[in-house]
Formats: sequence, C-alpha cells, structure tokens
Amino acid sequence: MTASFTPRHPSAATEMEWDAWGTADRRKELGEGVRALLQQALGVDTRRAPSLPETAVRLLPSRLDTRHRHSLERIVGPGHVADDDAARLRHAGGKSTLDLLRRQDPGPQDAPDAVVRPGSHDEVLAVLDYCAAEAIAVVPFGGGTSVVGGLDPVRGGFDTVVAVDLQRMNALTDLDPVSGLATLQAGATGPQAEELLGAHGFSLGHFPQSFRHATVGGFAVTRSSGQASAGYGRFDDMVEHLVVATPSGTVRAGRAPASAAGPDLRQLFLGSEGLFGIVTEVGVRIHPIPAAVARRAWSFPDFATGADALRTLVQTGAVPTVLRLSDESETAVNLAMHEHIGSTAPTGCLAVTTVEGTADHVRARAAEIDALLATTGGTDLGEEPARTWEHGRFDAPHLRDALLRAGALAETLETATTWSNLGRLRTAVTDALTASLQDQGTPPLVLCHISHTYPTGASLYFTVVCAQADDPLTQWSAAKRAATDAIVTAGGTVTHHHAVGRDHRPWMAEEIGTLGTGLLRAVKDAIDPRGILNPGKLLP
Amino acid sequence: MTASFTPRHPSAATEMEWDAWGTADRRKELGEGVRALLQQALGVDTRRAPSLPETAVRLLPSRLDTRHRHSLERIVGPGHVADDDAARLRHAGGKSTLDLLRRQDPGPQDAPDAVVRPGSHDEVLAVLDYCAAEAIAVVPFGGGTSVVGGLDPVRGGFDTVVAVDLQRMNALTDLDPVSGLATLQAGATGPQAEELLGAHGFSLGHFPQSFRHATVGGFAVTRSSGQASAGYGRFDDMVEHLVVATPSGTVRAGRAPASAAGPDLRQLFLGSEGLFGIVTEVGVRIHPIPAAVARRAWSFPDFATGADALRTLVQTGAVPTVLRLSDESETAVNLAMHEHIGSTAPTGCLAVTTVEGTADHVRARAAEIDALLATTGGTDLGEEPARTWEHGRFDAPHLRDALLRAGALAETLETATTWSNLGRLRTAVTDALTASLQDQGTPPLVLCHISHTYPTGASLYFTVVCAQADDPLTQWSAAKRAATDAIVTAGGTVTHHHAVGRDHRPWMAEEIGTLGTGLLRAVKDAIDPRGILNPGKLLP
Repeated sequence: MTASFTPRHPSAATEMEWDAWGTADRRKELGEGVRALLQQALGVDTRRAPSLPETAVRLLPSRLDTRHRHSLERIVGPGHVADDDAARLRHAGGKSTLDLLRRQDPGPQDAPDAVVRPGSHDEVLAVLDYCAAEAIAVVPFGGGTSVVGGLDPVRGGFDTVVAVDLQRMNALTDLDPVSGLATLQAGATGPQAEELLGAHGFSLGHFPQSFRHATVGGFAVTRSSGQASAGYGRFDDMVEHLVVATPSGTVRAGRAPASAAGPDLRQLFLGSEGLFGIVTEVGVRIHPIPAAVARRAWSFPDFATGADALRTLVQTGAVPTVLRLSDESETAVNLAMHEHIGSTAPTGCLAVTTVEGTADHVRARAAEIDALLATTGGTDLGEEPARTWEHGRFDAPHLRDALLRAGALAETLETATTWSNLGRLRTAVTDALTASLQDQGTPPLVLCHISHTYPTGASLYFTVVCAQADDPLTQWSAAKRAATDAIVTAGGTVTHHHAVGRDHRPWMAEEIGTLGTGLLRAVKDAIDPRGILNPGKLLP
Repeated sequence: MTASFTPRHPSAATEMEWDAWGTADRRKELGEGVRALLQQALGVDTRRAPSLPETAVRLLPSRLDTRHRHSLERIVGPGHVADDDAARLRHAGGKSTLDLLRRQDPGPQDAPDAVVRPGSHDEVLAVLDYCAAEAIAVVPFGGGTSVVGGLDPVRGGFDTVVAVDLQRMNALTDLDPVSGLATLQAGATGPQAEELLGAHGFSLGHFPQSFRHATVGGFAVTRSSGQASAGYGRFDDMVEHLVVATPSGTVRAGRAPASAAGPDLRQLFLGSEGLFGIVTEVGVRIHPIPAAVARRAWSFPDFATGADALRTLVQTGAVPTVLRLSDESETAVNLAMHEHIGSTAPTGCLAVTTVEGTADHVRARAAEIDALLATTGGTDLGEEPARTWEHGRFDAPHLRDALLRAGALAETLETATTWSNLGRLRTAVTDALTASLQDQGTPPLVLCHISHTYPTGASLYFTVVCAQADDPLTQWSAAKRAATDAIVTAGGTVTHHHAVGRDHRPWMAEEIGTLGTGLLRAVKDAIDPRGILNPGKLLP
C-alpha cells in the first residue's frame, strides 16, 4: 500500500479543553454521595468557588516578531501559525494536576509565543532549520496529555518559544498486512490510528489512559505503555522504525524486525521527549482485529496473593492481553464508585484478565490462565466486573477533574520494580505520600494497582486523593517529592510510563547516573547543537 | 543472595584451539562418502596439504614495553599479563572462515602485544584508565567466537594493542529466584552460566551456536540471539541491567523491568562491541529449569509454505520455545549428512518446534502449535528428527573446520527482514552468492534456514560450501561483498545476530545513515575520548 489515508475526523475536533482533561462532552460530575464521603472522610471543602472562565485568564504577550511569523507561515502555509491567546493557552502545558491548578491562575500566565502546525516531514525539518538559525526554542506537541511537565513553554535562554503541533500529520501512509506492519504519521491520535487500521481489519492495540487524545509520536517519545501491554507490549516494543526530523537532518532508525548492527538507534529516540528531534513517522507492529475476546474478573484475598498469582501467569508464559490487579483500597473505592456498597460484592483485591485473538487461541490461553488463577488463590467473579472496568477505562482523568473542581486534590504517579521488591516499594511510596500529606493537615486516601507486568517485575500505579490545602501547588509538590524520593530509595524507577518531563528531571542523575546523563547530553549536543529542542526537560 | 559462586571448571579449560573452532576433543572429520560428494558435486580438491603446525607460525614481536608490562601486572596481578606467542596467537582474531584462513599464513602474523586478564570490575576500570593515559589500544575479549572480525588486533594509530580477556570473571554474584533474575560476571561462558544457575534450579536459556565458548558479556555487546529465542527472547531482551567499565568511569544501566525514564541506556551498550566500554556484569532474566519439553519435527512441501506456517504461529501468539525451518537444500543436505539418502525420509523442508516449561503449559501450548501447523501444510514427523537436530546443534562450526581442512570453502552469513520481504531477500542473497562464486569458477551449494522469528519477520541464515580457489581469502571476500550488497539492496539488515565487527563496517552508513553513525560517534567521543577501545570496528 502506498496511498495515504487520513482519518474521518480532524484532530482539532478532539483538542482538549484548556482547563481540564479531554473534551467537554465527556465532563463528569461527582454524585452527592461521593461529595458527602469526601467531606466526611477526607475533610474536603466541597463548596469551592467555580473554576475560572477562559476570558478571565491573562497571558504574557506573544514575543513572536512579525518577521518570524511570516517566515514560519512561508514554511507551513498561512493559517498554520497561530499566536492568538486561545491557541497559546491550549498549548501552555500538559494535564497534570499541577498544570490544571496553574491554569486557574488569572495570570499573567506564560504560554508559547505561537503554535506552528506543519503538514509534512519536510515542513517539520524546515521549521527546525529556521528555529535553530534564528535561536527560537521549540516544544514538540502531540496530544497535549503530558502529566510530567513535558510541554511547559520553557525558553531555556531563548527569547522566543513556539509549540510545534503535529495535529495535521495524522495519516496512515503504509500498511503491510502480511508482516503486520503499519506506518503512521506521528500526529495520529489513538482513535485515529485505530480507525485507519480498523478499515483494513487491523488494530494497534495501544490503549493507555491518554488513548483518546495522545498521539503515536507522543507514545514513542515518552515510552508509553497501554492497558493491553501484557499482550501487545509497551509502545517501545511495537515500534519497528522511526523517522525523526532533527536540526541536523533526518534520522531513520530501524530496518528489520531485529538486528545486531550496533546499538539500537530507535532506543535513542524512544523516550527522548522531543530533545533530540521531532518524530514525524512511526512504523508499528499491528495485529488483526481480535476475532474473540474472553474477559474475566477475579478476587484475591489480599494484594500479595494477587501479585503472586499475576507473577505465576507471566513467568509461566500464560500471559493474557490485559492483566491488572487493584489493591484493597482501590478495590473498595471502585466498588463504592459503582455503588456496590452494601451489596454482596467480595472484598479483597480485584484482578482483571482479558484474552484476545483467534477463537482457538483465546480458548486455549484463557483455559490455561483460568486454571492457574484458580490454583493461586483467585475466586472467579465472572465477566461483568471486567466489562465494567473496560467500559470506564479512559475516564479516570475526567474523575480527577471533577474531584479538583470539588475541592479535593487528586493525582496519580507510577513506578516499576522487580517482583521481589514490589511489596516493599508499594509500602514505601504509600507511607511517604501518607506522611507528607498528613503532616500538611490533609490525610490522604492512597490507592494502588498493578497494570503492566513482566517476567521479572511489574509497575505500581498510585492514585492519591485528599483535601486541597490553601496552596495546593505547594501541597502536592511536597507530596510528590516525598513519593519520588521514596521510589528512588526503595529501588524503583522514577517513571514506568509517564516519562520524565520537567517534574522527574531532578531525579534523573540518580536514575541513570551522572555518566549516563552525560552520554545523553553528548547525543543532544551532536544532534541539536543550538539546544533549541524542548529546553528544561528530561536532562538535568 | 550475596555470596559469589564460581563454576567448577575454569574458563581456560575451554579456550579454543588457535586454528579451529572449539576444543580438540570435539574435532570432526568428514566421512569418505561426504568427501567423494564434495569432489564430484563441487569440484573440491580434497587432497589439500595438512594444516600448519603451531610451531611453524611466526608472529610480529610484541611491542609491549617492560614498563607497561609491569604497570599492568601491578593492576591485575602477576601471571595475568601474558605476552608469549601462544597466548597472543590465541587472541589474534575470531573464528570466521577468513580468520581461520589467515591463521594458516606462516607469518609474520599480527597479534595483540599482550593478553591482560583482570579479575574484577575495578581492575578492568584501572586497566582502561592506564591504557587511556598511556595511549594503548584495547580489544575486549570474551570467548573469542566473533565471526565478523570483532577481535582483530587493530592498532588504530596506537603503537601498542592489548587484548583484555575476561575469563577470570565468571562468577554468579546475585540470584533473585522470585523475580527470576541473576547477575553474572561478563566472562562466564554459556556452559558456566548454565552450571551456576542450574545449581539453583534455574536456566538462562540462551543457546547460540557459540554457546560452548562465548561469554555473557559477549552475548550482550553483540546482541546475540540463541536457538531458543522464540521462547526466551534475544539476549538483548533478557538483559535487565549492565555494569560497564569505561575510560570515563562506571556506567550502571537498567534499574527496573521497564521504565520511561528517558532513552534506554542499556541499548547504547548492547551491540556496542567494546567501543564504549567493557561490560563487566550482566543482570539477566532467568527461568526455572523446564519441568517438561515437547519436541516435534515437521515437513513442509516448500519453504514458502513453511515460512507462512511459522508466521501464523508467531502472529497468533502460539509461540514455541524453539522454532526453525530449513529450506529444501538444507533439508536435503542434513538428511545426506545423517545418511538418510535413499531412505523414505520425506523431502521438502524440515521444521523443528520445541516447547518448554511446566507440564501443563507445555501440554497446552504444544497442542495449540500442533493444531496450527497441521492446518498450515505441515506433516508431523514425530520427535526423532527434532532430537537429532538438538543433539548436533552446536557442532556445525566443527563441520566447517573439517570442510576447510578438506579443501572446501565453507562459511555462514545471516540477515533478517519482514515476512513479506523474506522470499525476495532469500532469493537475492542466494543469487548473489551463486553468481559471485560461479564467476570465480567455484559454483557453490547455498543452504538457508529461519531460526529466529518475530511477529513482523524473521532471520535468514545462509550456509555456503564450494571448492577453495587458489586464493580463498579473496574468493570469499568477493562473495561476502556480493551477498552483503544484495542484503542491503533487498532491504535486509546487514546482521541479525553476528554483529558488525570489521567485516560489516563498510555497510554501517547504509544500515543506520550517516547521521546515525554520527550519533554513535558522539557517544564514543564522550565516553572514550582517546579512542583506545576496539579501534577499527563497528563505526565507519
């Protein structure tokens, strides 16, 4: 296939709200019961003022001068360089709780001086050439879903900073149905990729919580991991090749399904968070739309027993497509949210398994999994709770927005470690979060789940909810610092799939060593000698 | 576990012969029938002179001056710096056919000026420090099994070159049975690693053809792939962390089973072939020694049908531990070697599947595989041919030695590509080898198999046998050049698991682009600013 196919709906239609996750049509509000519970259990003041209207927010004036504006328009075409406040505000940052709290500041807020929307690889190259020559900082922008400050308009010593938004580049440009390979432009969002591939009977199968808005290029440069990672792998596993526009020219990394031709160059760009170039095209592994799906939920008496059961599956090789386990607190809260309180729903820890594929494969694999989980302490809860999880699986960030609006502080963070260290790390992080927020007078609820598993270990994903203090930015920053210190001390990675951005940068030297950061800096200096690309992120 | 366990047999006991693969006790000779066949079918002159005795080989005198010798001895201890000709000759290169032909030159041959055998990470660091300060080139040396010129004693502008042999560093230093993780010193050979892990009930499961001699560190820096790669992954998949001694200090890469904390630094050292440092310690994924094994052989009517069947298995997710398919020529020759000629053994293409694991897992997975292969054109040949393959699976290089001694030219080469391109690439390489050797008056036999599979593609491994021309070095160099040009033109990778070394270096700019090689050069300059590490390899 050589023709280029574009999605039915343009990306602009799913551009997120300036002050919340997602689009307004999916906005959630808390029920009265939940609000009462927040007030009673956590001391949340649910009578907070309504959020700021967009018209009340002032931005610092754009510093893009007319000459630059015209030059950039000559590259990307008129209409594709926006320096109006509405566009700038929508590119002022990502969607962490800190970002959303910052957006509530009447201002003046900082924002990129303009949003540039190239339509092709060559236009991206030309924009980078121009910005390097003219000393303009560039923040690459995909779906805008960063929760680690990866999109902050840091000027890094430059006078002007522009966001380069890839939303026009969302086509499927190649499909190899025999090999199961597709080439997508980097700006295609999760739903656009699934739509384009689905028309040919294929699926990418990458479903992170940011799925509805995040882009293929963003998945690559942040080493994203989706909810079906047990079956289809992390996004970095799926990438067969990358095309990257850099200030030094074009890199094409990845030539075969596997190679021993030196270090794997794809891995320099996977996780590079826009510091080494802008990924414009991603060749990805795809699979036929599953003919069959078997969903099942399980209850385990406690987290340790459930984690051991998951470990048994993965180490045996009886791996489902989706595999997750909520701890006792998360299980209880989820049941409460679905108003199962007082019902006969089991307590303990809820696990979900989903197996996808051909009918025969699903039958064989599900039978193996069911037998193993039954002998490792699991109680079969049937299909329904797994369907319920799947139905709401992209909605948690909308719930966070509702919690923030209701005066609660809510945020997530994540890590990964070996199976033998998992319990210790979970306790260390829970304790650090609890101690920090308790000391600040806002004792939290800390929930945790495993959602990504490997033969040697797993991820841990924490959700924290407490009352907002007077200065919630300082409040959360302190808690996050305590949690990350605890992660590093207890031997976890500072991030399993959220990436580094600005927020995890202070821990990078501990994560990879000063010599390690020096090597990445050497690559940076070689490929972006002026240092225009995404200043202030990733590298200390 | 914190104690350090060392293998029963020291590495020196399995050091390879100076002029052949492996140790003398495994030497093979060709039967009269095979010799007659070589003469008749390929025009091989089987009356060649016997090989050179070691005493007839002269080496260039060692250039290591006494001061350096004493200084290095102070670091690694007396007795661990050898500059005698016997030691130097055994480190003069790897074991490619070109290497073995070069060893037959009465000389004077070039060789490292000394062999230095450090006993710890700190000693390796100190040796590198010293060599960087004194401008001495360093060739890191593991098992000595390179078949791509990765061990050539290239001086690269330096007066002196030493081989740093890791054979003293072969201990198991940590074992985490819950997570399935072990830490091995880099000099442990395949059998040593299996012995050390086996004592605790575990296995690494990495079985390349070089298994008996190659080391864990060598597996890492060449991105080795073993015969059980379908089940246990390539070696680069198995590596959880690496400790690397470099002229700039120690790098420890890898902190968790998976991470999004920037680019994966392990991947800069995996495949780095000793140019960025010397790997001293490797943390690897291990698994319990399989409780059950199911072996089965299959016949397919032709290579295309067989390849499609393998693809179906891998894309369905019904993956065995070992999965291989010989083409028609290789199948016929293997049958001939096992003297099945004239028997009722089926023609076509032989495939082997092996499934390992718990009894239940093996039963479930083997049933799924058997059903799929039966419906994709396979005829079940039972267990015996799979056992025969497994029994001789490390012996092919000994056969190559026997062929060389009998006046034949024999060598292997390999590549990988997508499933949709596999047939085209196989034809292109076969045609290029045939044309080149036919033009030189020595029409070859070209055999091929698939031994490493991925959802999106597979490797191709070629074996070439023909008569030796008067100058076999020039003869094979021309054929190899033609084959590699064909690989690049037909979209394969220049190497799937043999690595780059000196032999594939001329194609690296085409493989990863000039900007790609520039990035690796930037890393090299940052970590080894004097350029002492393995000059003349990998990077153009």
